[in-house]
Amino acid sequence: MRPAIDLNSDLGESFGAWRVGDDEAMFTLVSSANVACGFHAGDPMTMAASARLAARHGVSLGAHPGYRDLVGFGRRALETTPTEIAAELLAQLGALDGVARAAGTRVKYVKAHGALYHRLSVDAAAARAFADAVAAYDATLPILGPPMSAIEKAAREAGLAFAREAFVDRGYVADGSLAPRGEPGAVIDDPSSASDRALELVETGGITADDGSRVELAPDSLCLHGDTPGAVAIGRAVRAALERAGHRIEAFA
Amino acid sequence: MRPAIDLNSDLGESFGAWRVGDDEAMFTLVSSANVACGFHAGDPMTMAASARLAARHGVSLGAHPGYRDLVGFGRRALETTPTEIAAELLAQLGALDGVARAAGTRVKYVKAHGALYHRLSVDAAAARAFADAVAAYDATLPILGPPMSAIEKAAREAGLAFAREAFVDRGYVADGSLAPRGEPGAVIDDPSSASDRALELVETGGITADDGSRVELAPDSLCLHGDTPGAVAIGRAVRAALERAGHRIEAFA
Amino acid sequence: MRPAIDLNSDLGESFGAWRVGDDEAMFTLVSSANVACGFHAGDPMTMAASARLAARHGVSLGAHPGYRDLVGFGRRALETTPTEIAAELLAQLGALDGVARAAGTRVKYVKAHGALYHRLSVDAAAARAFADAVAAYDATLPILGPPMSAIEKAAREAGLAFAREAFVDRGYVADGSLAPRGEPGAVIDDPSSASDRALELVETGGITADDGSRVELAPDSLCLHGDTPGAVAIGRAVRAALERAGHRIEAFA
Amino acid sequence: MRPAIDLNSDLGESFGAWRVGDDEAMFTLVSSANVACGFHAGDPMTMAASARLAARHGVSLGAHPGYRDLVGFGRRALETTPTEIAAELLAQLGALDGVARAAGTRVKYVKAHGALYHRLSVDAAAARAFADAVAAYDATLPILGPPMSAIEKAAREAGLAFAREAFVDRGYVADGSLAPRGEPGAVIDDPSSASDRALELVETGGITADDGSRVELAPDSLCLHGDTPGAVAIGRAVRAALERAGHRIEAFA
Repeated sequence: MRPAIDLNSDLGESFGAWRVGDDEAMFTLVSSANVACGFHAGDPMTMAASARLAARHGVSLGAHPGYRDLVGFGRRALETTPTEIAAELLAQLGALDGVARAAGTRVKYVKAHGALYHRLSVDAAAARAFADAVAAYDATLPILGPPMSAIEKAAREAGLAFAREAFVDRGYVADGSLAPRGEPGAVIDDPSSASDRALELVETGGITADDGSRVELAPDSLCLHGDTPGAVAIGRAVRAALERAGHRIEAFA
Repeated sequence: MRPAIDLNSDLGESFGAWRVGDDEAMFTLVSSANVACGFHAGDPMTMAASARLAARHGVSLGAHPGYRDLVGFGRRALETTPTEIAAELLAQLGALDGVARAAGTRVKYVKAHGALYHRLSVDAAAARAFADAVAAYDATLPILGPPMSAIEKAAREAGLAFAREAFVDRGYVADGSLAPRGEPGAVIDDPSSASDRALELVETGGITADDGSRVELAPDSLCLHGDTPGAVAIGRAVRAALERAGHRIEAFA
Repeated sequence: MRPAIDLNSDLGESFGAWRVGDDEAMFTLVSSANVACGFHAGDPMTMAASARLAARHGVSLGAHPGYRDLVGFGRRALETTPTEIAAELLAQLGALDGVARAAGTRVKYVKAHGALYHRLSVDAAAARAFADAVAAYDATLPILGPPMSAIEKAAREAGLAFAREAFVDRGYVADGSLAPRGEPGAVIDDPSSASDRALELVETGGITADDGSRVELAPDSLCLHGDTPGAVAIGRAVRAALERAGHRIEAFA
Repeated sequence: MRPAIDLNSDLGESFGAWRVGDDEAMFTLVSSANVACGFHAGDPMTMAASARLAARHGVSLGAHPGYRDLVGFGRRALETTPTEIAAELLAQLGALDGVARAAGTRVKYVKAHGALYHRLSVDAAAARAFADAVAAYDATLPILGPPMSAIEKAAREAGLAFAREAFVDRGYVADGSLAPRGEPGAVIDDPSSASDRALELVETGGITADDGSRVELAPDSLCLHGDTPGAVAIGRAVRAALERAGHRIEAFA
């Protein structure tokens, strides 16, 4: 039997009356759900709905903390100190975990969002503060993030498990980073191309970059975007292709 | 030996650069600290500072959730459903508990704030939702609140311990409610009067109302205000008077 | 020639990355746009986009202030004082008017949103504070609101013009109030029924209530909802029916 | 007669129940008040109180816009686009101006706050967007800011008046920038030293830097900090020293 692979997606990104994404459908496709914790998106009612969906569908619930920037959706760099990053992570992780308890589940892992995700990829001090805070909360919680990053190093130094993710719907450049949006091939919105890439990632452990070179990623999880128009179609195609090829879809956490 | 009494105060009510109260001093005087959880006051850095002070001084850390209304400090009635109250309670309780873990302590009890506190005193459906949510989070957490209230009833029905509080610096009317601010005797700002009332409350289980009648309160905890100009002086006087009379000051939780 | 009628809709209700409604289409159908000002919805970029659409399509730009409650979308009652209502109205009105200047237009009228709208219908002190604040800002700005309401009275007493609105897609009860959502006939989602009601409202000045009695409304403006799935279809049908019947669609302000 | 000099201070920085600074006293000492507009500090009630103080004391009311970051008090760099800066400036400026109308005054000038102030000193695109937005709002409004900065250049290119400010309670380094806090002489908290520096700035147009060299600033306004413990004492001393030396204190706008 082939090894299992995880499918994750950023879900629970609504806020109050504002709805985004088809969470009802996406929760049936993923094995891990990165759920916003109220700082860049999400509110307690949305968190509760997401936690109930996770419990109902047997999906692993992940905390998806971001910068405190609702209007910017956590996508804008914000000059926070490592101490602030740690405190804000703990408040967000605790908030979702608290809501999850009443929904019959718990937070199983942590993945940073947006500008914080990017910062933790490269900023060692920020990554250390983040990983240490996760460890202080619960040393059995893995972190999900980009391969070979500052946060992978920090997670391992903090004694945490780390799961590597790769993107099925984003092009890569030779150094392993994502092709900037706007460039040709940067965003894959065709379900069949995304499925092919998912299979390549799972079966070879890497992907062909835009210059034809090979990027090694050794992914534990494939990230599906949850908030694009074609998100559900891509998710369905990727999941079906993996299953057809005999891969189990299974949460890493 | 006389039975123990708890002293509680609303602390950790700063927000970002805005400071309120002399928390450093108050944490040396109380046995229980009701710490704001970010919705009406408090932010993760302030919560972390409060949790560290609680750990350092052996003070019992309480979650002090309120309505999501920073500009109104949680003092304004807000038309929330019981379901919203439950979800917001869990997010706030979890957030503080998450921050507390990294500070070497945990949340030990829950007390509602401001307009939510008042609503839970009288609104059975809201009180039930709140108590059930606390029980779903951790059925060993007591709720601190007003005697003979909807929230006392709901807490007991949810199988939770309930601790009754009385105010040393507020006048009472015959029906057991607080004298409205603005009336003579409604606010006691003299440390010696507050100390006398503390002793009366602890030793008789009740207090003399403004019309001379007696109000039975059977308090487990005395509430000291933490954000008034004379807060520290009143707190010191009350604590000293109780200790002089042989009462142990001890957290109920 | 028949007298003109105004068509208004609540638009500009997005917030940051969260989009709601098809504003591009709705701005081509209405003569007046009630644009959220940042307290219950809207942010400066969204306000700027709305003001540019208003300028481009010759639509009258209205300030649509609400309670400071993003997560509740301004739909929940909030215990504010008349003084707070006035100050918050001025800040919201000024904010949109400021953004509008750089878009080549200005705010032309004011209509309250959600729970504030309902309160101003019945609360004389709140309505007076609101109307006086509008008058202090610019005594030539009309208020748009429900007929025969506290805010109509307050507007006239403050020397302001008042425009009455009626809803083409909501049922009325005999006392002139809206049929509660959930009751049969409370929400009209059929474009052809909505068009018939629009014609009845414009041509007779009133509407048939759910018990068959007649409600006199004398509307200056018909409100189209902008954020429902069928909003654009209803708007198109109503506008076409009115134009076919020879009614000019024209802003009241 | 000697030329007039302006004294400005950041005031109106309270938020809801959180109070900062002794605005009642400071408004009697300054000729220009930079008043927070709700994004980093300030709320409509606080803005209204500040506008009334400005009107009562004949103080020139300035809009003091900052980044949308209450918890960080606008002191943290935030990755906003020039378009966002312009839209947020207009919303803040309009909000304060709207509140001011009902208080019997109007906004007379604009000065950026915190991290936005620093960015506009050096970022030409951001400065241009900011100045153009001020000009679109009202081309007669001056901008107050640091001498020889990107924002001075942008203001002049947008056809706006620009007033240069210098700090009486901060040390300067030879290149004209402020000595970093923490270094000796970076913060002057002695009223008599601050007064001496105020006289030096006004009478020579510059100040002696920490290395003994001279920095030319040609200030139109001296900035007094309003939120430090000694703020009022320094303000009184500076104002008295200037008046004793025959300088008129007068708003530049």
